[in-house]
Amino acid sequence: MRAAIAGASGYAGGELLRLLLGHPTLRIGALTAASSAGTPLGDHQPHLPQLASRLIEETTPETLAGHDVVFLALPHGHSAAVAARLGDECVVVDCGADHRLTDPAAWQEFYGGAHAGSWPYGLPELPGQREVLKGARRIAVPGCYPTAVTLALLPAYAAGLAEPEVVVVAASGTSGAGKAPKAHLLGSEVMGSASAYGVGGVHRHTPEMEQNLGRVAGTPVSVSFTPVLAPMSRGILATCTAPAVPGLTAKALREAYEDAFAAEPFVTLLPEGRWPATATTYGANTAAVQVTLDRRAGRVVAVIAIDNLTKGTAGGAIQSVNLALGLPEELGLPTTGVAP
Amino acid sequence: MRAAIAGASGYAGGELLRLLLGHPTLRIGALTAASSAGTPLGDHQPHLPQLASRLIEETTPETLAGHDVVFLALPHGHSAAVAARLGDECVVVDCGADHRLTDPAAWQEFYGGAHAGSWPYGLPELPGQREVLKGARRIAVPGCYPTAVTLALLPAYAAGLAEPEVVVVAASGTSGAGKAPKAHLLGSEVMGSASAYGVGGVHRHTPEMEQNLGRVAGTPVSVSFTPVLAPMSRGILATCTAPAVPGLTAKALREAYEDAFAAEPFVTLLPEGRWPATATTYGANTAAVQVTLDRRAGRVVAVIAIDNLTKGTAGGAIQSVNLALGLPEELGLPTTGVAP
Amino acid sequence: MRAAIAGASGYAGGELLRLLLGHPTLRIGALTAASSAGTPLGDHQPHLPQLASRLIEETTPETLAGHDVVFLALPHGHSAAVAARLGDECVVVDCGADHRLTDPAAWQEFYGGAHAGSWPYGLPELPGQREVLKGARRIAVPGCYPTAVTLALLPAYAAGLAEPEVVVVAASGTSGAGKAPKAHLLGSEVMGSASAYGVGGVHRHTPEMEQNLGRVAGTPVSVSFTPVLAPMSRGILATCTAPAVPGLTAKALREAYEDAFAAEPFVTLLPEGRWPATATTYGANTAAVQVTLDRRAGRVVAVIAIDNLTKGTAGGAIQSVNLALGLPEELGLPTTGVAP
Amino acid sequence: MRAAIAGASGYAGGELLRLLLGHPTLRIGALTAASSAGTPLGDHQPHLPQLASRLIEETTPETLAGHDVVFLALPHGHSAAVAARLGDECVVVDCGADHRLTDPAAWQEFYGGAHAGSWPYGLPELPGQREVLKGARRIAVPGCYPTAVTLALLPAYAAGLAEPEVVVVAASGTSGAGKAPKAHLLGSEVMGSASAYGVGGVHRHTPEMEQNLGRVAGTPVSVSFTPVLAPMSRGILATCTAPAVPGLTAKALREAYEDAFAAEPFVTLLPEGRWPATATTYGANTAAVQVTLDRRAGRVVAVIAIDNLTKGTAGGAIQSVNLALGLPEELGLPTTGVAP
Repeated sequence: MRAAIAGASGYAGGELLRLLLGHPTLRIGALTAASSAGTPLGDHQPHLPQLASRLIEETTPETLAGHDVVFLALPHGHSAAVAARLGDECVVVDCGADHRLTDPAAWQEFYGGAHAGSWPYGLPELPGQREVLKGARRIAVPGCYPTAVTLALLPAYAAGLAEPEVVVVAASGTSGAGKAPKAHLLGSEVMGSASAYGVGGVHRHTPEMEQNLGRVAGTPVSVSFTPVLAPMSRGILATCTAPAVPGLTAKALREAYEDAFAAEPFVTLLPEGRWPATATTYGANTAAVQVTLDRRAGRVVAVIAIDNLTKGTAGGAIQSVNLALGLPEELGLPTTGVAP
Repeated sequence: MRAAIAGASGYAGGELLRLLLGHPTLRIGALTAASSAGTPLGDHQPHLPQLASRLIEETTPETLAGHDVVFLALPHGHSAAVAARLGDECVVVDCGADHRLTDPAAWQEFYGGAHAGSWPYGLPELPGQREVLKGARRIAVPGCYPTAVTLALLPAYAAGLAEPEVVVVAASGTSGAGKAPKAHLLGSEVMGSASAYGVGGVHRHTPEMEQNLGRVAGTPVSVSFTPVLAPMSRGILATCTAPAVPGLTAKALREAYEDAFAAEPFVTLLPEGRWPATATTYGANTAAVQVTLDRRAGRVVAVIAIDNLTKGTAGGAIQSVNLALGLPEELGLPTTGVAP
Repeated sequence: MRAAIAGASGYAGGELLRLLLGHPTLRIGALTAASSAGTPLGDHQPHLPQLASRLIEETTPETLAGHDVVFLALPHGHSAAVAARLGDECVVVDCGADHRLTDPAAWQEFYGGAHAGSWPYGLPELPGQREVLKGARRIAVPGCYPTAVTLALLPAYAAGLAEPEVVVVAASGTSGAGKAPKAHLLGSEVMGSASAYGVGGVHRHTPEMEQNLGRVAGTPVSVSFTPVLAPMSRGILATCTAPAVPGLTAKALREAYEDAFAAEPFVTLLPEGRWPATATTYGANTAAVQVTLDRRAGRVVAVIAIDNLTKGTAGGAIQSVNLALGLPEELGLPTTGVAP
Repeated sequence: MRAAIAGASGYAGGELLRLLLGHPTLRIGALTAASSAGTPLGDHQPHLPQLASRLIEETTPETLAGHDVVFLALPHGHSAAVAARLGDECVVVDCGADHRLTDPAAWQEFYGGAHAGSWPYGLPELPGQREVLKGARRIAVPGCYPTAVTLALLPAYAAGLAEPEVVVVAASGTSGAGKAPKAHLLGSEVMGSASAYGVGGVHRHTPEMEQNLGRVAGTPVSVSFTPVLAPMSRGILATCTAPAVPGLTAKALREAYEDAFAAEPFVTLLPEGRWPATATTYGANTAAVQVTLDRRAGRVVAVIAIDNLTKGTAGGAIQSVNLALGLPEELGLPTTGVAP
């Protein structure tokens, strides 16, 4: 089976290629992009020497045609039109935001413009979602922050252990901001510095978190979300907290998390007393979770670490594609981080 | 006037020395430490070439005697005994935790052992505190996290704009963990990684935050605090959020912050739309604050950046000493960060 | 086939385990260590969740017995005694320094104590070395710096293009200094800082470089080596320069490098004009090389990037083991870096 | 006395402003720039809260007129024309390259275009240069790398202890590459990575090093220079090595360095056995030097650390201006690094 990658010169595209080079079933087909079309991939992804001489083509329906899977790592607003030209039998995977939100009003508020509709949501760990993804031909890859936050709080809301008012503060590596050169993302600016951005309910991943957690809880959940840019290339460390329901015990909380993740191939609940570090998930499709009950403040506090480019984007995308194609869910996905 | 520094080989001691070298009134007297006594300061603080050949002495009442000011940068539990030998006329500044908490029960819960009592609390920005510090001969330097969190939320609680249930997630540079070699603080472990620790209400700075905010609010305030170790040497970026009181407007919130900080020499409320970055406070005794009202979640969200070693420890200590000695509060304290 | 790892809690041990988890033929057997014996591996290598509950045993002849391969990642001076107990049929791989040097006088000068003798040297790229390694039952894994420097200059000396007086300055990530906690390796010390150490011909990897280059050149080669600690966890970037022989042209130099590396599976000569970056080899068993002729100074200048833990230690070790066991040399070894 | 800064929004401009804010004699006058004219300085230099509301003007002869000192931090090729309009009584300080080289042929080879001529060279530590700078009204600020390399080898060549063939490998922080956004300077690209660039005698600072060392040696000196981009914002660590003259002893070498730097206010020869780290000079106008004789290789090896923005640019500039204005050379210049 052959997979095309649109947006092959960016960070998400590079990570898709790195993972596909280790995938036993999916072969790499067309590599396309916009401004870098016509240049060799080696100019953009020097860490992939096997593909260094492959030429990048323009992203057009023609170059993407004839593949079993097409990954779209494009700016938002472009994927619907491309997908419409690709045929129903092709698995089209939107790594962008266009098809994540089910509520047109939320789309309008946070992104503006016409809502492209929603596609099957590529987070297999959501209850019932593996069945949705099996055989799917359109997949909306979740945002990196929503992946982290949803996994961190899923057991609490599935078991009814937390009130529906969440506070999230999440530190992210700079690759989440992409490869387009901007002054505030220069190494000189980010090294040695932590900074907040998109504060106060304006970050576009906020409604996606609310959508996921509300679905799990069966009731609307509000999220106060503050993203923080941290001086590292990769990784998200999300601290997620919500008021505990009355009478919640630490034991019940722990058991809910143990039960929820016991069969998950990519999510690890850490032993008690150990807290997640992003380095342990570096380059892996894994999530490391810990949870505790803050008795003094009466809150559930869950912390999760993922790699924003792997489990948070490209790895999560391939995990869903594996399901869509009827392959083993774990096929070709690394479960060891590169550390130290 | 001469100042002695006990704990001169550690990070807090080094920062005190760096600042005192630029202070026009305070001269550096004895440098003392425990295990590094007998070695030249240059072995421990190579960034201070002027003092490289100064020998470190043992921390004893004798070596600390005869100074106008004695800074104690010692592990907790030691400062009360040392201070008892130093005489009432000497300004004794405890950079450790021993005399910060007024509630013996809180001390017992978080530190254990006998409570040494409380000293005038060295955060001049607290309402009425400048008067307390003027002429004080004992000063308890606040913890680095409580300095950040208290400043970030002080205007909100002073003006009654937030409910008394705070959630704080704060990223800190590694110097906050000190200079004693530990495997989890190795460069190989911390570079490229963010990790949580002391989660769930167990961090010792929690009751100190509650004490400060409760004093400002005039009512008990609970704090859910999650510290995060970030891959940088210095800096704290604290995201502090609490439910807004009913009817709060963004305009009223902004005005409360503008009023509270208008006359503060070291705290800057950023222009609307710009959010704090720790790099802007690197090496400076400054705090950069921003606040917003998250209307969807109904919360006040304040973010602050400080340098944990400067405003968070050594600079804050000297600011209070300036008041204690009747000197201008800003004397000798840098207000420009070293960036990029 | 089963492989034991002695020194499983350290950085070299962790990297061996990470790579072996992806190796199709070698299974992981005993995990042993010294002071961490009795603890679960998850306490030391949290990035390997699959092995988190495996208990570390003591490093003894008994725990290491019965394996096809034994990797020794021990402090120097220990491996000869362990190997003597393991039997001739076992492939014993010394990741330490004990058996690298063939000259007892060089051993005596740089390490002191009795020389344990030399084993087949695990750098397959050296001329004729693949034949030596096929069927070998003892392997001395090269030092990380000598791996880099030898590969960078091998084509120049094999083709007689440089005079035998080399100057090397190499920046290394901190993992090369190991996991034992030392104050100068704390994150607070190394982040934001580059520093030299072991300057002036005293670093223990110097005679190993001279041994390798002298063997290739067929004449003694002297090396002036300056190692630099850089603020990154992994990676070596070595700048290697020597006087060009009279009449050398840029074309002849380029062709020598093209020829030398054309068939090498793990060494890439970059396209002209692009220079190596360590990030492109992060976590991979690859080397990226570039070379040029500095006409003004009359010198060959070669620059190489490797990952000190992968190609520089654990990956190089497995590459040699593959040869020793008659397996394909590239088996189980990643050739894609994790970037950005 | 008032000083204008042209290029106030860049890194060199920001560092000039930071230092001038602490200078007792020079007041900050006009702030000018090109594309950022019309915006407040706080948008560009948020670490300087005192100047946040100052508006940036266009760089024109009119805005720069009427100052005692004008600092030009402009792209090369612009300063001669600006200076021609400023009058002879004004001290014009070119932080760019235009007036550093005395040899028009070297200018032509490395920069191209017409040579603007040379100005008094702003490195007071060069023999006889303090006299040149006293009363000077035009100053060419040295490049950051040449500052480091010249100081590191000055004693060796002044005393005739090294042959005139130098090899330099120098790691630099990213601020040396400026603030213009470029993809290869993004934090995602530079964090965790060391990379070489401008290899093989093509870096524009090469002829400047040769000019300085040749002047000290009294004979032409060739330099093979390899710059390395290191994952840090500030700092240069230069390893500088040259063949020792026959019969050189370690004692004679050490004494030459001790003598050369004994009276220098900003250059410290470290105690034997300790090697420079850039962190010790962070934000300071200092240089830390160490030297040794590599007996095996027969080479002098000197290592130096400076802050590229302070001693390497803005601090060095002010040091020369102090001399030009007849002020104490050390006035307003920090000699303590910000560490850790």
